[in-house]
Amino acid sequence: MLAARWHGRRDVRVEEVAPPGAPGAGEAQVRVRWCGICGSDLHEYVAGPILISPAGRPHPLTGREPPLTLGHELVGTVVAVGPGVEAVRPGDRVTADACLRCGTCPWCQRGQYNLCKRLGSVGLAADGGFAALLNLPAYTLYALPDGIADEAAALCEPFAVALHAVKRGGVQPGHVVAVVGAGPIGLCVLQAARAAGAAAAYAVEPLAARRERALALGATAAFDAGTARGEVYARTGGLGADVAIECVGHPESLPLALELAGRGGTAVVAGIFEQPSALHANRLVLHEKRLVGSIAYAGEFPAVMALLADGRLRAEPLVTDRIALREIVAAGFEALLAERERHVKVLVAPE
Amino acid sequence: MLAARWHGRRDVRVEEVAPPGAPGAGEAQVRVRWCGICGSDLHEYVAGPILISPAGRPHPLTGREPPLTLGHELVGTVVAVGPGVEAVRPGDRVTADACLRCGTCPWCQRGQYNLCKRLGSVGLAADGGFAALLNLPAYTLYALPDGIADEAAALCEPFAVALHAVKRGGVQPGHVVAVVGAGPIGLCVLQAARAAGAAAAYAVEPLAARRERALALGATAAFDAGTARGEVYARTGGLGADVAIECVGHPESLPLALELAGRGGTAVVAGIFEQPSALHANRLVLHEKRLVGSIAYAGEFPAVMALLADGRLRAEPLVTDRIALREIVAAGFEALLAERERHVKVLVAPE
Repeated sequence: MLAARWHGRRDVRVEEVAPPGAPGAGEAQVRVRWCGICGSDLHEYVAGPILISPAGRPHPLTGREPPLTLGHELVGTVVAVGPGVEAVRPGDRVTADACLRCGTCPWCQRGQYNLCKRLGSVGLAADGGFAALLNLPAYTLYALPDGIADEAAALCEPFAVALHAVKRGGVQPGHVVAVVGAGPIGLCVLQAARAAGAAAAYAVEPLAARRERALALGATAAFDAGTARGEVYARTGGLGADVAIECVGHPESLPLALELAGRGGTAVVAGIFEQPSALHANRLVLHEKRLVGSIAYAGEFPAVMALLADGRLRAEPLVTDRIALREIVAAGFEALLAERERHVKVLVAPE
Repeated sequence: MLAARWHGRRDVRVEEVAPPGAPGAGEAQVRVRWCGICGSDLHEYVAGPILISPAGRPHPLTGREPPLTLGHELVGTVVAVGPGVEAVRPGDRVTADACLRCGTCPWCQRGQYNLCKRLGSVGLAADGGFAALLNLPAYTLYALPDGIADEAAALCEPFAVALHAVKRGGVQPGHVVAVVGAGPIGLCVLQAARAAGAAAAYAVEPLAARRERALALGATAAFDAGTARGEVYARTGGLGADVAIECVGHPESLPLALELAGRGGTAVVAGIFEQPSALHANRLVLHEKRLVGSIAYAGEFPAVMALLADGRLRAEPLVTDRIALREIVAAGFEALLAERERHVKVLVAPE
């Protein structure tokens, strides 16, 4: 079968590989319908290995190192299950939680599996969804209700990231939320904040096209970074946001989010950073703010599926292209890098 | 009467001033028995005006500017009350919450009066306790039970700061807590963490004499900053602290506290900082940590009094000197600066 495999930085090859063998104990084999390109796939393409284990240092949970097949925002159909699998059956339409975990460390035992000591991700620590078939631990799979179309289901994973960030921020009904960054995660966060009852959700984003998308998806207003502080404080009578959620990973977006959060407010940091930020701790102390990290999700898939099914989360407007696996480098990675105004989510169909 | 008044940096004068007039509506007049020197008094002495309003810019709540009488960690006796005061009566032995607030802004209305938009402090935004008499809003006063000696009662205020920081960190029974800094606040935080049920409380402090004090007050172990990380992780089987509480205000103590907190852990920042810190946000994101500011307190006085009365908080070992008001500069501020190994809390008796 064809697979898009990461060999090195700027070296993703669509090549023929052997299909996976029969699923082992606790595993299911999934035939992939769509798999979305995630920001972290793009990071690995441009600057990896970041979450991928470097060659010669096998991942502590999976034992895998490059090359491996990317892709973890997937929807497909179970075609076979290994011994002991009861939660899903052949024929089930499924999406996958990408967190591969040990199940036994203190964090897994507390349900914080996103903090597992040996955490790995589908498509980064093991072969992923940019191929027709893959074997996954059955604990990662969720059977989809009929109310969620295949394309929407491919976005369960980024919506789970977004809902987790909103929950980490403690968003409550009536809150004012500011979302820094209106890329794929920011646009999901905006919707998740609304679903959590936010009275107002402000988007902060330098690209005009993305601000437009944010407005179309329910943002109360959208600003560029330069005017955001003044606008948010003016529109809240000087209170600032209850919760600001940073979805960018730029060193300056952290202090901006902290500034948008008013006295007693919370800034969630959901971006992945390449450089340190300068932080004057008095900004946290004197106005008693919180700065809260958020990574992946821990149990949010059922909630996301319910909210997608009833329309409170809308995935379709985020899908800006559908491409074949063979096109993944040019029409996927390179297009996402070159056309940031145009693209949000590109879905890839294996062959 | 004599008062220790802040005129400028390194310019605190013990001088004759007129005693306060009769207490106004909602006020009580207190005769001061002891008033402790706080780190923030010392900050104002060395580097002020910090929280004191600069000359020519009257405080928005009190209208006061320098010179004014310092001191806010006080215990005394009510000698008169103004119209409408019912909560305290002449003869009551009292301590004072130092937060002067408007009572009407959104934060006051939520009970977060420490975030009041016009917050001021007794002894920084209005005349304080380094004088025989002062008038205070009755809402700041708490009548003391017999079980708390005068000297101990003077430490209600720093213990309230400490208990608030422990609560902001969400310390729960069985938690491992690391306290960065074993000065007056750090030593109160250690005890408050134990009172909250911490199974272990590690002190991190460069001065050997302060490490000894921490151990005497119930710290599980005490380390200098260089060995703290290795020790805390070794003693917790790699888990790190559930909660780390920064009580210093040094730019490097913030990243240290964040490092001492394990995956999913919380670092509370209770110090006041003069310089920014460098923070790589991935330290927050990838291990989903929280960085939580803490300032003053909001309603912690009754809990502190209960814990002092039953011995779970011990104030007496923190009192390292008792001086007369006339000595406050040489035996107070200068001694605290020069003899950091010897001193924790110096109590001042007005004349």
